[in-house]
Amino acid sequence: MQPDLLPGDRAAAVLQTLRLASPLVHCMTNDVVQSFTANVLLALGAAPAMVTEAEEAAQFSPQASALLINIGTLTAERGRAMLAAVQAANKSSTPWVLDPVAVGALSFRTQFAHQLLSFHPAAIRGNASEILALAGERSGGRGVDSTDDARSALPAAQNLARRTGAIVVVTGEQDYVSDGDKTLAVAGGGTLMTRVVGTGCVLSAVVAACCALSGSRLENVAAACQMVKHAGGIAIQGSRGPGSFIPAFLDALYGLNGEALA
Amino acid sequence: MQPDLLPGDRAAAVLQTLRLASPLVHCMTNDVVQSFTANVLLALGAAPAMVTEAEEAAQFSPQASALLINIGTLTAERGRAMLAAVQAANKSSTPWVLDPVAVGALSFRTQFAHQLLSFHPAAIRGNASEILALAGERSGGRGVDSTDDARSALPAAQNLARRTGAIVVVTGEQDYVSDGDKTLAVAGGGTLMTRVVGTGCVLSAVVAACCALSGSRLENVAAACQMVKHAGGIAIQGSRGPGSFIPAFLDALYGLNGEALA
Amino acid sequence: MQPDLLPGDRAAAVLQTLRLASPLVHCMTNDVVQSFTANVLLALGAAPAMVTEAEEAAQFSPQASALLINIGTLTAERGRAMLAAVQAANKSSTPWVLDPVAVGALSFRTQFAHQLLSFHPAAIRGNASEILALAGERSGGRGVDSTDDARSALPAAQNLARRTGAIVVVTGEQDYVSDGDKTLAVAGGGTLMTRVVGTGCVLSAVVAACCALSGSRLENVAAACQMVKHAGGIAIQGSRGPGSFIPAFLDALYGLNGEALA
Repeated sequence: MQPDLLPGDRAAAVLQTLRLASPLVHCMTNDVVQSFTANVLLALGAAPAMVTEAEEAAQFSPQASALLINIGTLTAERGRAMLAAVQAANKSSTPWVLDPVAVGALSFRTQFAHQLLSFHPAAIRGNASEILALAGERSGGRGVDSTDDARSALPAAQNLARRTGAIVVVTGEQDYVSDGDKTLAVAGGGTLMTRVVGTGCVLSAVVAACCALSGSRLENVAAACQMVKHAGGIAIQGSRGPGSFIPAFLDALYGLNGEALA
Repeated sequence: MQPDLLPGDRAAAVLQTLRLASPLVHCMTNDVVQSFTANVLLALGAAPAMVTEAEEAAQFSPQASALLINIGTLTAERGRAMLAAVQAANKSSTPWVLDPVAVGALSFRTQFAHQLLSFHPAAIRGNASEILALAGERSGGRGVDSTDDARSALPAAQNLARRTGAIVVVTGEQDYVSDGDKTLAVAGGGTLMTRVVGTGCVLSAVVAACCALSGSRLENVAAACQMVKHAGGIAIQGSRGPGSFIPAFLDALYGLNGEALA
Repeated sequence: MQPDLLPGDRAAAVLQTLRLASPLVHCMTNDVVQSFTANVLLALGAAPAMVTEAEEAAQFSPQASALLINIGTLTAERGRAMLAAVQAANKSSTPWVLDPVAVGALSFRTQFAHQLLSFHPAAIRGNASEILALAGERSGGRGVDSTDDARSALPAAQNLARRTGAIVVVTGEQDYVSDGDKTLAVAGGGTLMTRVVGTGCVLSAVVAACCALSGSRLENVAAACQMVKHAGGIAIQGSRGPGSFIPAFLDALYGLNGEALA
């Protein structure tokens, strides 16, 4: 099954819709990328809100346009709050996205991520090692890094999509986005992005924002990947290293225009 | 009651005093803005310290020049630690500042923020929706964003100031700073600042630093607003988007000079 | 006992080894510097992973190349997780590094840091006030800042090194690195680095990465100091203030070359 490309005008249309809708994204994410995640969503025109206490998280996710669950610095207490938020999101039909950071490498989060799978995520975004581990085919990468390439995890991603009903994204040199039936490939970006913490995590937040939009969820999620890849490519051109990449990337997301995406 | 302007030479004098005194600000703030908050205080010449465990927080706030309480990512445990810090601050006459992030939108923090009001904050800094909610007049914004404009919340701010004895700041396109009797207006900045996470939160930290200084607290707090607005304006001029805004803003705070403020 | 200088070609060799080995550093660090720490390690070619839950931390530290314990925002729960990680690290001979932020100033962390000393840290990195307090000679600085200069803490550092078996680093205008017998001095950097939060904390992370490398640990740790001082100096030259320093510093670490170090 050869992946297709997302038509450029679709990515442009999703970007325009995102800016008009300005989805409010409830982010329950790891300690390391809180600020970067919020700034990426703001730069794109979405609205982030980090709400973490269980009681508040359950009250807030129904008010949000989408919910992001990233288990990078999972604790038992955060796990309870995430579960409460996910259940409330489901009751109110708020779409939620799972970023299963380092699943497979550590038992506690692996068990938690598998438990979350039964709560109908709208999308799952991980690197190849994470998607393989979540699909039950391999036991994890090196810390938070993948030891597998994205293409090799594509069958696992497709199985996972069919089993859970989620759109599954495997990121790497190319990103693959699958609903289990149809698969889209997204190119762009560059290896400098692997020298900046959280480029995967912030993509998951953009995926969450795009899951709040109407239209084809498969295409909306692929458009999220394309926005981040495209802005990443612009930023790499305009930077001297990972330090200057960060402001350049946020500026590129802010200035992203549909014509360039198309 | 038409707001006055802060005389420019007053802002310059407060900046000079701040740099000489280098107040030590005990920051109990949200997960998203920890690093930005510390860097803003350092750039201005103040000294930040984040101490979070209840026992340590109560030991530390009396040693600090001022205490900041920001409830953006409140948890039950953090609430207990904040309460301990506030009570210790009051015993030692350390001024403390409340940033009631998203109050009104979420029950747990709304109840907590109302409880804190009885502990005599030196200042309260919020957007219009937050100040309206805290004054008991409206039920909150959209996530962490205001759905009201600052001017519309001015009467509520003045009432809140009279009721609590705090200097109340409502931020927006213009900032309003009131002791319930006299009100000062501060202009500057720009909408790009709403596309960067934490520009309000860091202002609250600067307000806390300025509450540690001698002289008129109303003017000290208005000077804090003016420093941030002015540096924000410089940074907007020197940036291409929200990414390059952040380093430019810290550089502008670092290089802020009294003559330009005046 | 006059400190020696680290031969420049040694620092260059350590940098090369670091990039080849790409040590996986398990960082249990404070809330304020999570992102900066990860980005510094990535820029240098190491691999950071923040794992915080006690059960996971104990599972992860044996898989890591080195473990960093930074007590800047210690809580009782984090203390338990840190202890579990340190004990697991010792069982698997993973070297671990202690950054005793603000020890001496606050009782809870002071007691905790003293308890940790019995678990054989590979290295300890602190400012003068922290090293004096940890050595039992003085009671702490002003918040997280030192009120003593590095040279004055050198005898305490040497005693602490002899007593614990750790390499002890006292940082300041010059850094001193001692095994209790031999001491190396490292110059460079500049005062602008004291206006950016976490420059000491990120050095501790680089020290941890270098403790994972083979060869003389004393020289490896001094090389870590030299990399950070050298990149700091380059970044100061290329920046207009603490804001532009941060991206310039990450770029300088990324582009650091052995010849310049030598």
